[in-house]
Amino acid sequence: MSIFITFEGIDGCGKSTQIELLKKNLDEHGYQVVLTREPGGTVISEKIRELILSVENTGMSTKCELLLYLAARAQHVDQKIIPELLKNKIVLSDRFEEATYAYQGFGRGVSLDILLFINMYATSRVTPDLTFILDIPIEESELRWKKSGKVRDRLEMNNKNFFKRVRKGYQDRAAMNPDRIVLLDGTLDIGVLEKQIIDKSIEVIRDKQFIY
Amino acid sequence: MSIFITFEGIDGCGKSTQIELLKKNLDEHGYQVVLTREPGGTVISEKIRELILSVENTGMSTKCELLLYLAARAQHVDQKIIPELLKNKIVLSDRFEEATYAYQGFGRGVSLDILLFINMYATSRVTPDLTFILDIPIEESELRWKKSGKVRDRLEMNNKNFFKRVRKGYQDRAAMNPDRIVLLDGTLDIGVLEKQIIDKSIEVIRDKQFIY
Repeated sequence: MSIFITFEGIDGCGKSTQIELLKKNLDEHGYQVVLTREPGGTVISEKIRELILSVENTGMSTKCELLLYLAARAQHVDQKIIPELLKNKIVLSDRFEEATYAYQGFGRGVSLDILLFINMYATSRVTPDLTFILDIPIEESELRWKKSGKVRDRLEMNNKNFFKRVRKGYQDRAAMNPDRIVLLDGTLDIGVLEKQIIDKSIEVIRDKQFIY
Repeated sequence: MSIFITFEGIDGCGKSTQIELLKKNLDEHGYQVVLTREPGGTVISEKIRELILSVENTGMSTKCELLLYLAARAQHVDQKIIPELLKNKIVLSDRFEEATYAYQGFGRGVSLDILLFINMYATSRVTPDLTFILDIPIEESELRWKKSGKVRDRLEMNNKNFFKRVRKGYQDRAAMNPDRIVLLDGTLDIGVLEKQIIDKSIEVIRDKQFIY
């Protein structure tokens, strides 16, 4: 049963917590689950991640940034996502193509037509079966960041208006793709979200089993 | 007088020697000349170059490789080529977009339509005024490499048939763009080539001055 599920949202939205919980829950249901992330997921893609996120590279142009993300994704799809799906695994990725639309499209202003074209090339049209977007207000994201004490990477150093556009982008993408993208209120209790996510995942997995 | 001239060809074709000679000759004519190269030319692009060429990254997919080259080019165009042209410099680049058509297009088999589209995005349509391709047989390339004693990078480790396709690609591109690309016999004497290159460059520079 190969299924590809992705988690999206701005920093501090709770993606990492929820992806781990979904893995645990699916493991308990007896599914074989692979956890991965973007940018990254393969040795080469993780090297590209370092380039993208390093605060040394503040002079990086939007075009360069976009093409680096897509280079990392191309390698990730070819070398990890497709091979794992072919082994009938459930692949869970912490970020995937919705991040490109939200951050480079809505955030940086790259035309969605260009993103669609190059992303289609990079992914070989491999699209998630299901995407969870954890939606939180920018103020909440900032609050959680302060609490976490983490150092901000190059992308996280953008200003508040940038993240407002990114959040709006995620919301718009969910509205445009209601059959594939689930927008969740990331301020809800962790356990409530966990239940919504495992229930929806099981529903999609059963639907897909029925199709085959 | 801003002019953008690029040098192309397979390894050992004599690009590096000729680009230095052209710089010297143009300097002597009183022009302000900037030498650069691809992949590379900026701090970020040189980091991407390391990723592309490192023999550690033999598992890199064609799509990832292409997108990394174009990421490096996008940064190079934005951060160096355009700013230098705006300062009325003559920019000489050791490789540019013809290498993408030859290596990733003809060599790796990526569709030329895809290359054209993504390259147009990466370069913001900045196209060389003049391109010299130094054409040498694959056997000559190998011979020159053996003499040089250099260690091969990841791209240079491809097989003979790959380089035959790349050479053919360069020849085809020259035939398709006779007004902009000059195919030179790279087995000619260095001084003969030097004269052909400076004469043609001065001709194009004068034509362009006349247009303005």
